[in-house]
Amino acid sequence: MSIKRFIIYIILVFFSYNVFANTYKTISPNGNVKLFFDLSEKGTPYYKLTYDDKNVINESYMGFVLKWGKGLLEDFTVLETVKKSFDEIWEPVWGEESKIRNNNNELLVKLQQKETKRLMNIRFRIYDDGVGFRYEFPEQDNLTHFIVAEEKTQFALNGNHKAYWIPGNYDSQEYCPNVSLLSEIRDIFRKKYGKVRGSYYSETGVQTPLQLKSVNGIYINIHEAALVDFPCMHLNLDDKNMVLEVNLTPDAVGNKGYVQAPFTTPWRTIIVSDDARDILASKLVLNLNEPCAYNDVSWIKPQKYMGVWWEMITGKSSWSYTNGIRSFKIGEVDYSKMEPSGRHGANTANVKKYLGFAALHGFDALLVEGWNEGWEDWYGKQKDFVFDFVTPYPDFDMKYLTEYAATKKVKLVMHHETSSSIRNYERHMDKAYQLMVDNGYETVKSGYVGPILPLGEHHDGQWMVNHYLYAVKKAAEYRIMVDAHEPVHPTGLHRTYPNLLANEAARGMEHPINNNHFTILPFTRLIGGPMDCTPGIVEMDISKFNPHLNGQVKWVNTTICHQLALYCTMYSPLQMAADLPENYEKYMDVFQFIKDVAVDWDGSRYLEAEPAKYITVARKAKGTNNWFIGSVTGDEAYVSNVKLDFLDKDKKYIATIYADGKDADWKRNPQSYTIEKGVVTNKTKLKIKTVPAGGYAISIFEVKSKDALKGLKHF
Amino acid sequence: MSIKRFIIYIILVFFSYNVFANTYKTISPNGNVKLFFDLSEKGTPYYKLTYDDKNVINESYMGFVLKWGKGLLEDFTVLETVKKSFDEIWEPVWGEESKIRNNNNELLVKLQQKETKRLMNIRFRIYDDGVGFRYEFPEQDNLTHFIVAEEKTQFALNGNHKAYWIPGNYDSQEYCPNVSLLSEIRDIFRKKYGKVRGSYYSETGVQTPLQLKSVNGIYINIHEAALVDFPCMHLNLDDKNMVLEVNLTPDAVGNKGYVQAPFTTPWRTIIVSDDARDILASKLVLNLNEPCAYNDVSWIKPQKYMGVWWEMITGKSSWSYTNGIRSFKIGEVDYSKMEPSGRHGANTANVKKYLGFAALHGFDALLVEGWNEGWEDWYGKQKDFVFDFVTPYPDFDMKYLTEYAATKKVKLVMHHETSSSIRNYERHMDKAYQLMVDNGYETVKSGYVGPILPLGEHHDGQWMVNHYLYAVKKAAEYRIMVDAHEPVHPTGLHRTYPNLLANEAARGMEHPINNNHFTILPFTRLIGGPMDCTPGIVEMDISKFNPHLNGQVKWVNTTICHQLALYCTMYSPLQMAADLPENYEKYMDVFQFIKDVAVDWDGSRYLEAEPAKYITVARKAKGTNNWFIGSVTGDEAYVSNVKLDFLDKDKKYIATIYADGKDADWKRNPQSYTIEKGVVTNKTKLKIKTVPAGGYAISIFEVKSKDALKGLKHF
Repeated sequence: MSIKRFIIYIILVFFSYNVFANTYKTISPNGNVKLFFDLSEKGTPYYKLTYDDKNVINESYMGFVLKWGKGLLEDFTVLETVKKSFDEIWEPVWGEESKIRNNNNELLVKLQQKETKRLMNIRFRIYDDGVGFRYEFPEQDNLTHFIVAEEKTQFALNGNHKAYWIPGNYDSQEYCPNVSLLSEIRDIFRKKYGKVRGSYYSETGVQTPLQLKSVNGIYINIHEAALVDFPCMHLNLDDKNMVLEVNLTPDAVGNKGYVQAPFTTPWRTIIVSDDARDILASKLVLNLNEPCAYNDVSWIKPQKYMGVWWEMITGKSSWSYTNGIRSFKIGEVDYSKMEPSGRHGANTANVKKYLGFAALHGFDALLVEGWNEGWEDWYGKQKDFVFDFVTPYPDFDMKYLTEYAATKKVKLVMHHETSSSIRNYERHMDKAYQLMVDNGYETVKSGYVGPILPLGEHHDGQWMVNHYLYAVKKAAEYRIMVDAHEPVHPTGLHRTYPNLLANEAARGMEHPINNNHFTILPFTRLIGGPMDCTPGIVEMDISKFNPHLNGQVKWVNTTICHQLALYCTMYSPLQMAADLPENYEKYMDVFQFIKDVAVDWDGSRYLEAEPAKYITVARKAKGTNNWFIGSVTGDEAYVSNVKLDFLDKDKKYIATIYADGKDADWKRNPQSYTIEKGVVTNKTKLKIKTVPAGGYAISIFEVKSKDALKGLKHF
Repeated sequence: MSIKRFIIYIILVFFSYNVFANTYKTISPNGNVKLFFDLSEKGTPYYKLTYDDKNVINESYMGFVLKWGKGLLEDFTVLETVKKSFDEIWEPVWGEESKIRNNNNELLVKLQQKETKRLMNIRFRIYDDGVGFRYEFPEQDNLTHFIVAEEKTQFALNGNHKAYWIPGNYDSQEYCPNVSLLSEIRDIFRKKYGKVRGSYYSETGVQTPLQLKSVNGIYINIHEAALVDFPCMHLNLDDKNMVLEVNLTPDAVGNKGYVQAPFTTPWRTIIVSDDARDILASKLVLNLNEPCAYNDVSWIKPQKYMGVWWEMITGKSSWSYTNGIRSFKIGEVDYSKMEPSGRHGANTANVKKYLGFAALHGFDALLVEGWNEGWEDWYGKQKDFVFDFVTPYPDFDMKYLTEYAATKKVKLVMHHETSSSIRNYERHMDKAYQLMVDNGYETVKSGYVGPILPLGEHHDGQWMVNHYLYAVKKAAEYRIMVDAHEPVHPTGLHRTYPNLLANEAARGMEHPINNNHFTILPFTRLIGGPMDCTPGIVEMDISKFNPHLNGQVKWVNTTICHQLALYCTMYSPLQMAADLPENYEKYMDVFQFIKDVAVDWDGSRYLEAEPAKYITVARKAKGTNNWFIGSVTGDEAYVSNVKLDFLDKDKKYIATIYADGKDADWKRNPQSYTIEKGVVTNKTKLKIKTVPAGGYAISIFEVKSKDALKGLKHF
């Protein structure tokens, strides 16, 4: 320990003792994480968090401003504290691991506001990789229904950390992440996002999951778990004092949350480690969610799918059927009398072609967007009755395709674009789900593009948080799996409702991205749950199949091997092979990895990780001895060094390594790659060079017969 | 013609000629009503209306401010005008008349905004009793979707008229009407309603239907017809110039209406006559609505009903089951384990008692409120999931009561209190309606008490206007009739959707009322459609059966005969006998009229009418030769003189006259009445004295046998 560090240490210890004279302290099972709780002189609750006895969160106040009457901010006394230890292993329906350990020490602080006699509890759960805490309002006489005007929970940071952030916005998370010091956020916000207006609430507003890194190498991740019946948590930074404070999403009249006791808020989570890999491997958010709510989960299945989708995204074809109308009402247009534009993607022949390709290559399912009437006039016009979710275009023969898909053993994935006309979607939901059941669709991709109707509500508000879960629970009644796009950020609810397979809730492949995009998302967006990030693009030059684009739009700013790696690094039980069949046909050797890679896992090892730089993960395919490794690189080239010591000692494996070519370049030469096949064992060490926005992918198959190894080199 | 009047006439003629040099003029079939339309120098549309060549509406501008871009206010040119005459007789499913004549001359003005090339038509229909006009936006390239920021339609009045008004409020019409000069509105508003805030938008805001009376005795009624997919029209008075201007109800972000062309606005209606009776008899609002939308209307039936309702209103019993809980969530409380309060009205035994009484006296149906779980914690708390509309309290045996009601041939009327949690109601609507079908309920009384959820939306906004009609149309899918309380003001939509039997949308019997209340409502509220006004109170002193009240609350400020008259004067196909069985048992002679009176009619004759003073109407019961007369009196005593010349010349009738007793007094002696029976013919003239807030009712039955007349006096 250097002198300097020793002095800081002494100061910290002194400070801690001073402030936390009567502190309630709880330590994580391995002792790494310590949580301190106390009341200020005014009776305001506050907490503090250390990792390895270093301050992670300084003294941070807690409580609520209420719309009416005295807030829940001060004048509290501790009635009682209850400590509890918890240790269990549970099995998710699907996931990165087949068994998850939930081991924590709990501190329940029962508070009473002296003057008002109101009760408010705070429950902390301290894990080896962080802490979760939530507010609980027990059933009581003096506090039944109330309106939260502000939540005042703080996260007082211990320095001007590096932050991996997107701007606070009540309606969208579709941003390229910024990497900057906390003190730089305000300037960047002004330059990139302009003024505080609409869904932007503050120049120092940031969203969660928020990844931070301190100068002394502590990784801190702030998020929430189990967001149910409460507004989404955003953060606002006091950039003088480096204190983050919760900023809940308001409703149309500016109220934040409507609460009825008994009630528990979502958990506020802090994941912490001095090893970035621990952040990625953390199951803290999942563990804080409730166990599975369904008795029968046999109908819930991870899936690899393709889509009649990328061709619309890239402009090769269109969602809409005709150019002949601009303004109409569903049910008032006879499409059979309209002149087709000739560009409609979801036509029977084209869908059939995709189904054939998907079947041939072993995919589980095919998404078809633009199958239903209404796409000529759907978005941004405050149109209420925009889709009915049951009426196909005249050139989409649902009955025929349903039968054809069945013969091909490929499931069709339904698409429900709500255009954020929420009432309209709920009005049609039962019939829409029933149509799916009647036609063998098991999964729905739902979309929430555009401002929420009625205007004034936000994607992240309590009203919408309620809706998303309503849609998932009702889907479960029909045994339907859900992949919602443009929703609130995920908070681990897929533990409780595992038919929520994936979400978007981030900038996906259909928008221009930064080179480091996918080296950051696992530290931010994925902390809440799987993302339907639509990887697998093999033809980055979209103008090759959309002559209208003239080479201008080229938004897939990665190498082809980076795309392959995403099937491992971007964990999801729902993985798309997003590109077009004809593009895959040109890269069948690369496509082989997409065909091979699993979508459900017995276990995962994060081998290397540094946000914005690189992530390497190895995953064991569920029920097999096969492994798949993905490694993505950020702005700068990287040399990955990994040991395969997780392989079984006594087993033999054949590995296929898909790596950036020497001349690979995300901008000029993204399709340069090498594919090498060879033998690996648990002693194998690999050193693989990647280029910026590059990466590699490895399939590792157990081989039972030694003959299979003949003629293969050893890596 | 006096000199003074002659001079005014000359000025008017001169003025008209001057301003309307190039005017488009359309005259009503009998020539009484004349409509003038033209464009100002700036190209702003304006109109003018005369009755009997007297100015009723002076030059009044028309148009819209849009949220974005140039408004639809000026720069118009007339492309074309189309004139059309229309005359038909149609038959309503139910009504005051069995046949209704729709006879008008139409002027369609096709306008184009020169700079923008946008098209906007205005369609006028000129009737002998007024005019309706609406804006129409044809399908066009330059105007597809737009947001209305303000509608600028004016009604420029020709003087400081007497107004029968309630204050403009986006969420409620439950006011006692005010009678004042227009110039007095502002002062009265300040004194009675305080500041402009919340749902009050202006100190001179008034609601429609608005009844006016000019100094020269012209009655003018302003309202709207066919309010579909548009915000409710309120009015704002410029009390210097006596110009009323439309003030549409805003949504949560302040927008008024979301419009997609092709679109037609609701009709703006002006009913006009120099005889107040014509206002009451007018079918203008109905005629401007579309014909019936249903092919099969056999399931729609006018009804006379009773209710387990007044006993809760008066505090004798309660909607809720227990006092043991204050805050809970539906489905999380096991009511069977709660201690009953003993005051729950909707218990099986009590309902059975009502059913027996209703059956004995020939009623069609019985409403039961408070039958379902949730009433302990339902209102004003922004509670989203407040009722599920399907789960009865443990002491309400739905199965048994369904069977018992069937044996008694009395239909149960369902009650759905939404507490304005709109999404929650829509989510449960299908199951709730299905429960009704399964248990033989044919009619639902729905309620919208409290602020609309999500907050920011208003009862009268476009979002809610859409909801009310959604509920009615969905009810029709289940062959269910609707009686919605606390809705937007009715606008004659029951012509198109006759399963919308009635609405509240006014201050009913459950609140304290002024003595003149029911002499004004037919001129205001009823112009839009029937009201479920819950008449028939025979025991005005509520403390007699609610000992808690101690005589303080006595809100039925009328005589008993006034109550009887309401069955005729307050036209509705849904009429309640609102009082308790035990009260009727004390007044069986009076109750006889309630039992006798019809609820559907072949024809109606308004015999006497003056707003706030008196209304006398005679109605012929459908499919019979029997007539019923009701007469209500306002603040001042009145002597009614009516001729029964509408009776058939060659028929004999026995009349029973229920009239105020000589010592009747609404406050001190409301139950003083006389009942006389005698013979009447078409030569009979009656002179009946009434007291303030008094009235009379007459049943007139055709008698085929002369023997029946024996011993009876002749009136």
